Parts: sequence; structure tokens; C-alpha cells
Amino acid sequence: MTRIEGTGNARAKRDYPLNCWWVAAAGQEVSRRPLGRWLLGSRIVLYRTEAGSVVALEDRCAHRWAPLSEGKLLGDEIVCPYHGFQYNARGMCTHVPVQAHVPAALKVRSFPVREHGTFVWIWTGNPERADTALLPELPWFADPEFFQTQAYYGEIGCNYMLVQENVLDLTHVPHLHDASQHEWLAPPADVKVTDRTVTFAFAHSGVSIGDVPSDSVKAMMDVECGRKVNRRGWGTFVSPGCHFSGMDVEDPAPAQGKRDRYSFRSMHCTTPISADRCHYWWSIAQDYGHHIPKDELISMIHGFVATVFKQDKDLLEAIQVTVDQGAATSPEVLLASDRAAIEARRIVQRMLDAEAAT
Amino acid sequence: MTRIEGTGNARAKRDYPLNCWWVAAAGQEVSRRPLGRWLLGSRIVLYRTEAGSVVALEDRCAHRWAPLSEGKLLGDEIVCPYHGFQYNARGMCTHVPVQAHVPAALKVRSFPVREHGTFVWIWTGNPERADTALLPELPWFADPEFFQTQAYYGEIGCNYMLVQENVLDLTHVPHLHDASQHEWLAPPADVKVTDRTVTFAFAHSGVSIGDVPSDSVKAMMDVECGRKVNRRGWGTFVSPGCHFSGMDVEDPAPAQGKRDRYSFRSMHCTTPISADRCHYWWSIAQDYGHHIPKDELISMIHGFVATVFKQDKDLLEAIQVTVDQGAATSPEVLLASDRAAIEARRIVQRMLDAEAAT
Amino acid sequence: MTRIEGTGNARAKRDYPLNCWWVAAAGQEVSRRPLGRWLLGSRIVLYRTEAGSVVALEDRCAHRWAPLSEGKLLGDEIVCPYHGFQYNARGMCTHVPVQAHVPAALKVRSFPVREHGTFVWIWTGNPERADTALLPELPWFADPEFFQTQAYYGEIGCNYMLVQENVLDLTHVPHLHDASQHEWLAPPADVKVTDRTVTFAFAHSGVSIGDVPSDSVKAMMDVECGRKVNRRGWGTFVSPGCHFSGMDVEDPAPAQGKRDRYSFRSMHCTTPISADRCHYWWSIAQDYGHHIPKDELISMIHGFVATVFKQDKDLLEAIQVTVDQGAATSPEVLLASDRAAIEARRIVQRMLDAEAAT
Repeated sequence: MTRIEGTGNARAKRDYPLNCWWVAAAGQEVSRRPLGRWLLGSRIVLYRTEAGSVVALEDRCAHRWAPLSEGKLLGDEIVCPYHGFQYNARGMCTHVPVQAHVPAALKVRSFPVREHGTFVWIWTGNPERADTALLPELPWFADPEFFQTQAYYGEIGCNYMLVQENVLDLTHVPHLHDASQHEWLAPPADVKVTDRTVTFAFAHSGVSIGDVPSDSVKAMMDVECGRKVNRRGWGTFVSPGCHFSGMDVEDPAPAQGKRDRYSFRSMHCTTPISADRCHYWWSIAQDYGHHIPKDELISMIHGFVATVFKQDKDLLEAIQVTVDQGAATSPEVLLASDRAAIEARRIVQRMLDAEAAT
Repeated sequence: MTRIEGTGNARAKRDYPLNCWWVAAAGQEVSRRPLGRWLLGSRIVLYRTEAGSVVALEDRCAHRWAPLSEGKLLGDEIVCPYHGFQYNARGMCTHVPVQAHVPAALKVRSFPVREHGTFVWIWTGNPERADTALLPELPWFADPEFFQTQAYYGEIGCNYMLVQENVLDLTHVPHLHDASQHEWLAPPADVKVTDRTVTFAFAHSGVSIGDVPSDSVKAMMDVECGRKVNRRGWGTFVSPGCHFSGMDVEDPAPAQGKRDRYSFRSMHCTTPISADRCHYWWSIAQDYGHHIPKDELISMIHGFVATVFKQDKDLLEAIQVTVDQGAATSPEVLLASDRAAIEARRIVQRMLDAEAAT
Repeated sequence: MTRIEGTGNARAKRDYPLNCWWVAAAGQEVSRRPLGRWLLGSRIVLYRTEAGSVVALEDRCAHRWAPLSEGKLLGDEIVCPYHGFQYNARGMCTHVPVQAHVPAALKVRSFPVREHGTFVWIWTGNPERADTALLPELPWFADPEFFQTQAYYGEIGCNYMLVQENVLDLTHVPHLHDASQHEWLAPPADVKVTDRTVTFAFAHSGVSIGDVPSDSVKAMMDVECGRKVNRRGWGTFVSPGCHFSGMDVEDPAPAQGKRDRYSFRSMHCTTPISADRCHYWWSIAQDYGHHIPKDELISMIHGFVATVFKQDKDLLEAIQVTVDQGAATSPEVLLASDRAAIEARRIVQRMLDAEAAT
């Protein structure tokens, strides 16, 4: 059976709201083979019914606490691997092998889940507030003009907000990823805040195409090296677990037979395991690259993301070690370029306060 | 030298009595080479005197806390590897290389030990209560009619009672071990409780022979596949660290020249390292298999136990992870099939209460 | 990037003074490539300016807590790997890529450092008390008559005082290192204590030459086996992080053309990472061995130290495990041979008390 690891520092104070949709898995991760995962401090098992809908249950048999995720599916129900207790999709025990009577107390928590875009979203807070309208809008990820792919990157050894704040301040790009991309050094002039979201925008004129590593980007765009383009883009803190960003590239004088516009969209989704560890998923949609065979295109995009995100991950995990050791005696010093991150923290704090008040 | 690991979560509340005989080692593990081991929260060194009797001392020199188990034996005494302080079998320091005078304070705890059956048993509680009459009765393990073998399985990453409760409820057999053995699903009708023990009994009629993996069992019994037999058996919680079980198989119509009765006895011994880790030893005695060469027979029995117990171990360790993370918000729901386990818990609690009272 | 590990048990009570010079690195470890290291509970980055002097800064950008040690040097300044914030050798931020104004709050701690002997020494306590006069005197390590070498051994999984006390009581030599060297069993008659130091002395007459492993020692001294010599030596607890020892060997009847005197000096330097882990450096100076090619001589000395110290390290780490587990119920029993160690503990305690009082 699969070895179940713990959640790391489960005792650290929770700093993530539960009344929120969080990604539990990429859609393709959930199948007829139960998937056990720590999400938001809870052990949860995910599986699909025969009709294909997703079920999320507390991954702990009410009888002897065995992980249901190590059991088997029987139709739409899951069977505990230890003594064969059987649970339906609502978490009610429906069958106990050793006796005819099934006590009503034999039940496990069932969590609201929605399959939306390319991800499965879970709500582990108050189920009555699990409003589907709170899910992010993701038009491009369903648009056939856009080629779309995504993956579960794995676990990151840091607080989820370190990842969210990383993508809310792209002035780190030339330092951490590609020294040639100076244009990112200018902090966004425009940060818009709503009750639940933070959006910053940027515009770069006459800059070299692509991003790091740029070879695969140029191949996907089907343009030659040295091309100068204009870029407009934005990033949005959609929720504590979801960042959405877009970039439209304009080629002011395209070569003969080439396009003059390219659109790129990405999602960065994090879900806390505990206060110092999180899951990370990403999704990319782009309206170019259709000339490349699909497998090769997927491989290019995944390779690009793996290279860039590894640089972020290593740094963020190093920061977390410093935080954990309490090595710092003074607070962070935040600047104008941190405004989007600061606004995001305020939203999270309001959500936590609202939960604490009820 | 051997790397000494810690005990894991030594700070968790102790939930095992000390006024109890626990297995410290299989007899063959203790030799003239000192063996250091964490037992019941204490670091203990075990060795044999020249005459062969077992000594158990606190594995920590009173001078500078070096592990005596890394030292050497000199006759019946043990010599600290750091500065050569020498201790006798009662834990008194008898020689200090740097000076003639040996202060009376130079002593380490000595623990009552008994070699009984095939194991060495230790008592780390009040030595005045270390009554040999409290050791389990093990007639079959000394009976020449029975072939006997045992082993130290190793460390299990769970509370010792998870292992004890596992063998007190065999309705898990068809789910965790062998789906074909439906007869185990019926919980034992008969659970007998005394001051210190819990015994359940079972009887299966007309069931397929053996257990999982059954090939080796059939080979040992020298019968062909598909044979239907009757089984009577029982399991006894003898003490918090020892479970004893027996099974007598009757073949109602044995093939020509074959036996009509087979007896099988087993012991499951656990000793806490800390509240979330324990040692596990097993011992098996059976009155059949004598036609098989001894080495091959040992290998068959050990292979059988390794396969089956690995399934238990993996599940029990997964349960412990859930317990450690405090992932559960509701208590276990216990059924009639848990009665033997519940009674065993009550006995342990009474033993703990009695210790706390003195 | 380099994976940054935590400090181990950072929560254990600090038992090392900060108003003290501690070794931060061997001189050759510090270069134009930044070196990040946990020292005395702080994460510190070390590097050299273009002129070669050593800089020690808090290894945590004041902005987003990224480790500066993963950044690059620009002249005498260090650039954060995350957003390019730049700090000078005094820890003041001098440049922020995203804006013209550099807030005064953007600074990291800068620590007094001195390059002395072959080591870099750091003071993380009150900088006003960082008196250079408190550095140890090390004449032989600068004397051209002496061949000198040193190394960073690595991290030791024990409290720094276990290492310091190990070298303050050499009666462990025949037990842990070489059973043939009985002469070390006699505890030093002479222990001299000052306000800040403890010194013991020893004298051995007519003993076999060298130490363990003695072959390389004899080769370095250029004498044959079986030679009997006289030895006089001493060990000094110079400070909580530094032990200095010397030994002069006299050959009363040297073979023709051979020397009659050989001098050996060594330093053992420890610096706490946390209460249960420390760094260890050593340095050796000797006035013999000049007939051996330098590379070979270095290799002999380093091999000798590695063999001997591995025996100490394994034992000291085993002792620390016992201490961590709280397995001991009684205090250490200390004898006359522990006098130097006890006096050293008293000095450390006085330093801690003095710090607590201010």
C-alpha cells in the first residue's frame, strides 16, 4: 500500500480560510482508483462515481480510523481496507460485514466538490456557504481556440501565501529567472482591489519576445530570435488558492505569413497541507503552438514550467526554513512593489476574521 | 559503532504500564555481544553472562552518559566505551580506571529479566512486584511434539495497542489478507474476560484449509488443495505486550495415510518504544511439518509471517499517522466485534490506574 | 541552489554565550562565493570583499527574507537572489531595483568578524563588547618553523560542550582510541584555572612514541618503531568555542642524525548551531615532517585527525541522543578526572549569567 506521510508541522497556527474553494486535484488525477491527500489539515479521499462525478470524503473510517483511500470502490461506494465497512458518496456507512445493523454514527465527513475548468475544487468549511458562484471564471480554459494543459506539480515546503505572493510581484523575474528581461523591474503602476480580488497590470513596449527559457516559447509562437514585441498583461489574486494571469503579445511588424497577436493565460493554484507546506498545480492556455504535434507541445510547456518554477520553489522553501527557525528579529520591510501582495494578505485576513466571528 | 536512533515522539503521554513483563528480545538475540535497545521509554543494554544468564542494565554510564552497549564485556561485567568504567550485572560500578576509589553513586539501574519460552522478558516498573507468576504460560513452545520458531520482526511505527487490537479482532482477515476466507467475518460469539486476560473463541466448519498464503500451509500439513476441514481456535490477550492464539484443525475424512488433526499456536509480542512506536516479535509452534527439512520449514514459516504481517504493519502505521495528525474530529465508533479489544483496553487502563495510585 | 537545512532543535534553551568570539569558518572557506551558515542560532552569510577582508551579515534580506547567500556579489556588496536588493558590508541596503528611494529600514545585521590565526571569528553578542583582545593567542600557528594545516570537519550532532569536555579529559584515549596508550589513564594532577581559562598539564616518561594511528606520526617524526620517549603537554580551554593543546616530545637518546625534540600544537574549535548541534574545526601545527612533500603531509595529518575524531563524534552523538530522550533519571556522577571540564562549565555559566544580567 501507499505510504502515508504526515502533514509536517500540523501544530502551527492555521492561516488559511476554510470557507473558500481550493483545488483538491487536477481533473485527470481523480479516477476510479481512490486518491488520498492531505488538504487544509484534513485527510481526504477523492474518487469518481461510475457516472464520473467526483466524491470527496474524510479519509478515515469511522470505525478504526483506517485510510479509506487504501480500500476499493464498489460501484459508487468505497470499502474500508481493514474490516470492509462500506461508505456511500455522502459519507454514510451502508454496510458492516460483521453485523446486520449499521449504527447511524458510522459516517465520515463528505465535502462539497466541483469540477470546474480543469480542476476539482473542494470546500472544507461550512458546507452551507459553499457557493458555486465563488469559483473563479475561466473562459479561456474552455475556449477551443486555446491549447490547454495543466499538472499537479507536487508539494512545496512553504506556506501557500509565499507562492501566491511570488506571482503577485513579478519584479523578481530578472533576478530569479532571466537577467535579460529588465522590463519586469518596473513595479505595476496599476493595482486594482475588490472585496475578494487584487489585480495588477503591466505593459512592455519593444521588448524581446518570450520569457525564460525562451527557445521553446519562440518555437511555439513560430517566430525567429531577436524579434521585438509589445506585451500587455495582468495578474489576479482570485482567491487565497488561485492566481490567474494573462498576457497578450503584439508583434507590430510581423514577418510575412506570421501572426501579429498571441495570447497566453495561466493559473497558479495552491492548497495548504499545513501552515508550512502546500500543494501546487498550474494550468496554461495559449492560442498558439497549434502547428506543433500535441505531445511535443505538451512536453514543451511542461518543460518550460518545470524549469522556471523550480527556481521559485527552491527559493521559497529556503525562505520558509528561515521563517521556521525564527531567525528573524525584525519584520519584513515592504515597498510599493509589494502592494498587490499586501492587499492579498488583507483579503485573507478578512476571510479568517469572518470565519472566527461565526 | 552502531548509530543510536531516538525513540520518536518521547513526549507523548505514556499509555503502557511498567508493572508488567514485556518482551525485551528473542532469546537468540541476546549474546555475549551487548545489545542496546529502547524499551518502554528507557535505553537498555542486554547481554549474557559467561554462564548464559541474561543481564539488563540502563544503557547509560553514570559518569558521562555514554551507551554501555557500545562497550565490551569483561567476564560478566560491561565496560563503558568512553572512559572504561566497569559495571557488574547488578549495575554497580566495580572499577574506575582513573582512580582507586569507586564512589557508591556510580551505578546504573538493573532490571529484572526472565528467560521464558523463547523470549527474554523485562520488568521496568517497581522491581518488588516483578512476580514470575505473571509470566504467560506457554506449554506448547516447550513441547517436543511441536516445531517451534520465532523472530524479532523489527520496529512498527504505531502504538503497541494497535497491534494488540489487530489480533483481537480477526474479522479483518478477509479484507486485509485473503478475500476467500469469508468464515472470519463472523465476530466471535464468545468473549471471556478475567482480571488480566481476554479470550475469544471461534469455530469454522467445512472451510477450505489453511490461511494466506495457503500454499506453504498445505505443504507443511502435507495435504492437497481443495481440502475442507473444521477449525476450532481462540485468541488470548495475556498481557498488554503478549497475545497468544491457538487453532486446532480437524480433517473429517483424511486421505489414506494422512493425519486427521493439526495444531497451531502463535504468540504476538509487542513492547512500546514510545507512545507511537513499538517492537514486534512473533513465535509459532505447530505439531506438523516435521517431514520438511528444518531449514526449509523455518523459511516457509518466516515467509508466511512476513507476507501477512506486512499487510497489517502498513495499515497500522497509516492509522497512526492519522492519529498523530489529530485529523479525526470524532471518536472511533466501536461495534460488537470490537468487544475483545475494548475489554483489553479496560485491563490496560486498570493497570495504569493502579500504577498511578502507588 | 543549495538546500538550506534548519538548525535542528532550535527551541532548546540556549546554553552558549553570545558575548564571545566563535569560529565562523576556516579562512580558506570564505571567498568571493557567499557562504551561508547557521551560527549560534542565527543564519549568517560570509564573503570576502575585493580587498580580501571578511564580511558577515544576517543571511536574510530585510524585504522578503530570502537568503542573501544564494545571491551574487557586486564589488563589495551582496545582491539578494529574489528581487535584487543590494547590501553593503555594513548591512545597509544601497540599491532597490524597483524604486529610487531606499528606505532606511532596509538593513540587515552586520556582525563583527576578525581573521585570526587560520580562522574567521565572529561575535554575535553585543558588538560594543567585541574586544579583539579576547581572541586566543596562537603564536605557533604563524611560526614558520611549524607546518600548519586545518579543516572544517563538519556538523556534529551534539551540544558543543560535549566536544569541549571530550578534549578536557584525555583519560578516554586508551578506551576510545588506542588501548595500548595506558599512560593517559592517569588524570592530570595539575589543573590551573583563571577567570576565563582552564589548563591541565601532563607528563609521560618512557612511553612509546606517537599516538593513534601511530604509523603516520612516526613517519612524520622520521623515527623507527618501538622508540621510547618522554612527553610533556597541556590542554587549555581558551573560550567556550576554542580548546588549545600542545605536546613536546623528547627523545632522550636519539638515533644518529635524528632530532631529540618534536613539538605539536592543536586547536579544537566548536560553534553551536543550536543546543544540540555544532560545527567543528580543527587546526594542527607541528615543527616536524618537513621532509615529507607538502601534499602528502597534509593528507597524513588530515587522515590521522579524521580517524581519531570519528571515534569521538560517534560516541558524542550517541550521548546526545540519550540526553535528548531524557532517558536519564539521575545526574551525571563526576570524578576528579572531570575537574577541568567542571571548571570550564563554571566559566560558561558565569558568561551566561553576565549576559543575562545586562
